[in-house]
Amino acid sequence: MKINYVVKRTIKLCIFCLFCVQIGLAQNSDQEQIRKIYDVALTKSKSYDWLNYLSNQIGGRLSGSIQAQQAVNYTKAELDSLGLDKVWLQPVMVPKWVRGIPEFAYFETSPGVTTNVPITALGGSVATPPNGVKSEVIEVQGIEELVTLGEAKIKGKIVFYNRPMDPTEINTFSAYSGCVDQRYAGAMEAAKYGAIGIIVRSMNLRLDDYPHTGSMSYGELKESEKIPAAAISTNAAELLSTSLKLNPSIKFYFKQNCKEFPDVESYNVVGEIKGSTHPEEIIVVGGHLDSWDLGDGSHDDGAGCVQSMDVLYILKKIGYKPKRTIRVVLFMNEENGLRGGTEYARVAAENNENHIFGLESDSGGFSPRGFTFDGPDSSFEKIKSWKDLFEPYLIHLFQKGGSGADIGPLKNDKITLAGLRPDSQRYFDHHHAENDTFEHVNKRELELGTATMASLVYLVDKYGLLP
Amino acid sequence: MKINYVVKRTIKLCIFCLFCVQIGLAQNSDQEQIRKIYDVALTKSKSYDWLNYLSNQIGGRLSGSIQAQQAVNYTKAELDSLGLDKVWLQPVMVPKWVRGIPEFAYFETSPGVTTNVPITALGGSVATPPNGVKSEVIEVQGIEELVTLGEAKIKGKIVFYNRPMDPTEINTFSAYSGCVDQRYAGAMEAAKYGAIGIIVRSMNLRLDDYPHTGSMSYGELKESEKIPAAAISTNAAELLSTSLKLNPSIKFYFKQNCKEFPDVESYNVVGEIKGSTHPEEIIVVGGHLDSWDLGDGSHDDGAGCVQSMDVLYILKKIGYKPKRTIRVVLFMNEENGLRGGTEYARVAAENNENHIFGLESDSGGFSPRGFTFDGPDSSFEKIKSWKDLFEPYLIHLFQKGGSGADIGPLKNDKITLAGLRPDSQRYFDHHHAENDTFEHVNKRELELGTATMASLVYLVDKYGLLP
Repeated sequence: MKINYVVKRTIKLCIFCLFCVQIGLAQNSDQEQIRKIYDVALTKSKSYDWLNYLSNQIGGRLSGSIQAQQAVNYTKAELDSLGLDKVWLQPVMVPKWVRGIPEFAYFETSPGVTTNVPITALGGSVATPPNGVKSEVIEVQGIEELVTLGEAKIKGKIVFYNRPMDPTEINTFSAYSGCVDQRYAGAMEAAKYGAIGIIVRSMNLRLDDYPHTGSMSYGELKESEKIPAAAISTNAAELLSTSLKLNPSIKFYFKQNCKEFPDVESYNVVGEIKGSTHPEEIIVVGGHLDSWDLGDGSHDDGAGCVQSMDVLYILKKIGYKPKRTIRVVLFMNEENGLRGGTEYARVAAENNENHIFGLESDSGGFSPRGFTFDGPDSSFEKIKSWKDLFEPYLIHLFQKGGSGADIGPLKNDKITLAGLRPDSQRYFDHHHAENDTFEHVNKRELELGTATMASLVYLVDKYGLLP
Repeated sequence: MKINYVVKRTIKLCIFCLFCVQIGLAQNSDQEQIRKIYDVALTKSKSYDWLNYLSNQIGGRLSGSIQAQQAVNYTKAELDSLGLDKVWLQPVMVPKWVRGIPEFAYFETSPGVTTNVPITALGGSVATPPNGVKSEVIEVQGIEELVTLGEAKIKGKIVFYNRPMDPTEINTFSAYSGCVDQRYAGAMEAAKYGAIGIIVRSMNLRLDDYPHTGSMSYGELKESEKIPAAAISTNAAELLSTSLKLNPSIKFYFKQNCKEFPDVESYNVVGEIKGSTHPEEIIVVGGHLDSWDLGDGSHDDGAGCVQSMDVLYILKKIGYKPKRTIRVVLFMNEENGLRGGTEYARVAAENNENHIFGLESDSGGFSPRGFTFDGPDSSFEKIKSWKDLFEPYLIHLFQKGGSGADIGPLKNDKITLAGLRPDSQRYFDHHHAENDTFEHVNKRELELGTATMASLVYLVDKYGLLP
């Protein structure tokens, strides 16, 4: 009985040791592969040169624009040059909204005494009448205030939404979420009370002179009920607010001649490496190729596109042969329609494709801090067990949370969706504004993001997730 | 016996519960205090305005310069205005090295065919002869190569140190450490082999046109043996290296008229809040007030100075009464002498002061990632037990490591020294160069650093460390 016990213990111990050695070897090899990924990313990657081209040779890439088409052609050609197993364009109809000539605005403290202020039409807004609109301004801190004020105080006026982003939020995306309803639904709601236009404080934590555009919706309003909507820079918003306190009868004037055209055809750009043993399991990594028109879209989301392309390039470069199919998707029209993401998921469902994992980079090209995940708990636990492998690269954040707008439509009860989470502090200084430009992207920060994404894709491919 | 046991168990359980409640309350109250610290830092702190003044109204603050004295006066006056218990200047003699008129350099591929290149004299270097020096160049990858080459190949030439910082290091300070011997000791070593001058590739991971200065030493060389030393921009270093491969007989010319003057008196600026229950235990928080002269010293180390001042301001602002004495020290002359740090420690020893903790911020005003610690294991374990309190602020790094040059001289076997560790990726793009300027500091990143420092100082003050 005792001997039996000793034998049993010894066998158990041996099994345990073998198990440890195996885990050790796997960890070692993973450590080495990830080190290789970071080394290649920091010395031989293509992200930064690609982004330079997208930003400086092409520029802002609003859906339906010539630049968006140039970006499709350029990234398709670059993916073609990587020797992937398949590269293709996936057609999708997208909205075509055009800003027209630069907007113009001022406020008038007494007849003839005017102060020009920087504004930008919100994406999707209607134009003002050709001579602009001019009226008294009513400042509010949010949509709910309209109810209290009522039609009597709003009718015929311009509503000025001035609730700032909350500076005490550590994650600036939370501060953005707490404000963006003013931009998205502000015009629709103010129109119901008879406002003739709206001005929204830019979604920017910094006080500066850049107005920030972004998408908006008129909901179910009829064409005749739509009112023009523009964003004003944070500095000008502060100035206007102060001036209104001194003189509530200030008049605001603005003029914009933006226009919505019929939808046009555009494309998602897709490339893949076929999996060697589970080709039917698909891992998607992507960003969105369209951008707003004011800057060159370097952070939003040129960075995410070139990082995603580079994930495939780097995995090839280190000689890794994926077991599963790894696909890069550059989505079209995230900013004002999400048509690319929606179409990609529709086609995937139509073809009965089995997507096990999606990773999007759409939070800027800043120093990566980690990921947030949206998927089954068991998959999240598995991913969390890899966290230590990222420690040497100062990647600490592995949390449940959102992923990315474009991969969102792939959501079901099995897939895990993830978002790269770079440092968020500077993001809204540039987001949707004229200063979202290449010189504000740091090469190493961009490359570290790429390496972090490639490392996670490598681990998901090697060990799999819920099918 | 049994009843006795039950009673004992019950008592133990009660004590345990009380203990848990107490810990819970302490944690809660710490959570609340830290939340307050971050809220005040992100909404009412003074760091950014102070830095604006230091950078834009004063500018580069090289030891012994008028600007350094202006910085002493300004920060002293600002500390005076905070209502601390004591503010004073601590005299210290500092070196006075002056750059003189701008340096000039070119390389000549054939007689009369020249390419101008951006250089900057290293701090402490001697001047060239009035008409400059001109000679053939010998490129090396490091000091050890001089031994192999020997005097025959070096004598009469300019040595060009061109080993780049290693891009695969994740922490850029490690890449810096791996290279900086070329700058610090390059001239001293090359002079021994008869070189007539040295040019060092700038300590910069980015390819750009900014030369980066920094300290150097001639060791024991006699005045007559000293040779002039300058840094060249990374772009120009690449160009020179490529050109030398095509034509090894290229001549390099440079001219600089920098000069060392006798030492002058300057000051550490010190302010403190007296501890209420352990006033004899001193906690120091600081940065260095001097900077190089090319930029305005915003990241190195204006940021650390204003953050340190703000730690005391914020603790006062939230109404916290420290148990121990909390002292801010703005050290003079970190860059080219460390005289301020040395003098501060000397005076502290002379006065038998008991410093229990020192925290320095001298790694730029970027997004904080955590701290490194140098001190007894038991203190490190205690500090690590507070790590979870920092998690909501995305502060993850609590590691053993270096602290800061200025607080280094306080080192003994009881004190814990710590360094704030911000994201390091962009630091060496600006370090000691013309582009270390205010616009490259992000307000929120600076303030988050301040809050992170204040939170740690609060915890050390409240719970103490090894006395």
